[in-house]
Amino acid sequence: MALRMSPVFDVIVGSREADKAEATCRLGRETLKGRGKDCSLTGVTNQDAVDKADIVILAIPFKHLASTLEGLHGFEGKIVVSPVNPMEKRDHFTFVPPPEGSAALMARRLLPSSARICSAFNTIAANKWKALDEELAYSVPVCGDDADAKRQVMEIVNKISRLQAFDAGPLAASSMVEALTPLLLNIARYNRMRDVGIQFR
Amino acid sequence: MALRMSPVFDVIVGSREADKAEATCRLGRETLKGRGKDCSLTGVTNQDAVDKADIVILAIPFKHLASTLEGLHGFEGKIVVSPVNPMEKRDHFTFVPPPEGSAALMARRLLPSSARICSAFNTIAANKWKALDEELAYSVPVCGDDADAKRQVMEIVNKISRLQAFDAGPLAASSMVEALTPLLLNIARYNRMRDVGIQFR
Repeated sequence: MALRMSPVFDVIVGSREADKAEATCRLGRETLKGRGKDCSLTGVTNQDAVDKADIVILAIPFKHLASTLEGLHGFEGKIVVSPVNPMEKRDHFTFVPPPEGSAALMARRLLPSSARICSAFNTIAANKWKALDEELAYSVPVCGDDADAKRQVMEIVNKISRLQAFDAGPLAASSMVEALTPLLLNIARYNRMRDVGIQFR
Repeated sequence: MALRMSPVFDVIVGSREADKAEATCRLGRETLKGRGKDCSLTGVTNQDAVDKADIVILAIPFKHLASTLEGLHGFEGKIVVSPVNPMEKRDHFTFVPPPEGSAALMARRLLPSSARICSAFNTIAANKWKALDEELAYSVPVCGDDADAKRQVMEIVNKISRLQAFDAGPLAASSMVEALTPLLLNIARYNRMRDVGIQFR
């Protein structure tokens, strides 16, 4: 759930139960060790993750976004990244934004005004994060109102595999980024593809 | 504005004034002749274009969509393609759909129920259509409720340069396709790019 910036990232995974987060991290450490790679990966509670991290990534389903944020504190001054996509599956996937217009804008309403919110990573499928042998050659649109926070988030994006960050404008433009994900799920579904991503060009 | 299907496309351009449409076609014919290429390109009024075409492409700005459709008749049974994107430019570009949810769904409300409406070509920038020396290596999401019409539209897409058609689901999913265009305009604007397109992969 959270990243602490350092020459290499210190990754802190938060969960409602620290044991669950730590089990996830143990699996991650073992997997990377088996590939001869070192990492800094620690599992803690969500609150501990927020407290320890400089950059908090809200890697949670939209339906849990409000309740999770309402149960946490200490976001003042932190960079908060929303990859959250509010959508529903009817016969097809549909973008169903909250009254604020997007999940990122809802997060802005729920968090202290000093929190620096960006949307990023919205369209990277979960399976792609797990596919350690694959290169992630995708474009990642990043929205945000704080220029320094957006620059830091874009730098993180550009350090991951072959992801390429693109400035997609202010947080008010995040609804169009979030609407991409149900579109990509429809493309996958109706063309018998898997884990479809995008490239801008 | 309209395509008549044949081994080669007969292209019929409609305008409120036939003279204006014919002037556009004359320029097109001369340009292609200068490149040693033949074409079938005729300029007529919008109503004549609808009457003569099997497939009608609504290549008009969103603000003129309702008034144009309300002034025309004879769409019964025809394939109607909407590349229309309802959007506004504030400090950034924003998707501003009509009450129906998308321009394509608005066209469906305004046209006879036997018209077979698809959305396609939404994200191909006007400048790209004019850049005859460039290959158009883009993905084109196509929405529609009539399977035969959608298949025909996807075939047309796949015959143009290196465009590749993708089934993006029913017409109800077209809002997410139309929202792509203001997103791409924002990507171009904030990253100093020109005529940004997309590829699904």
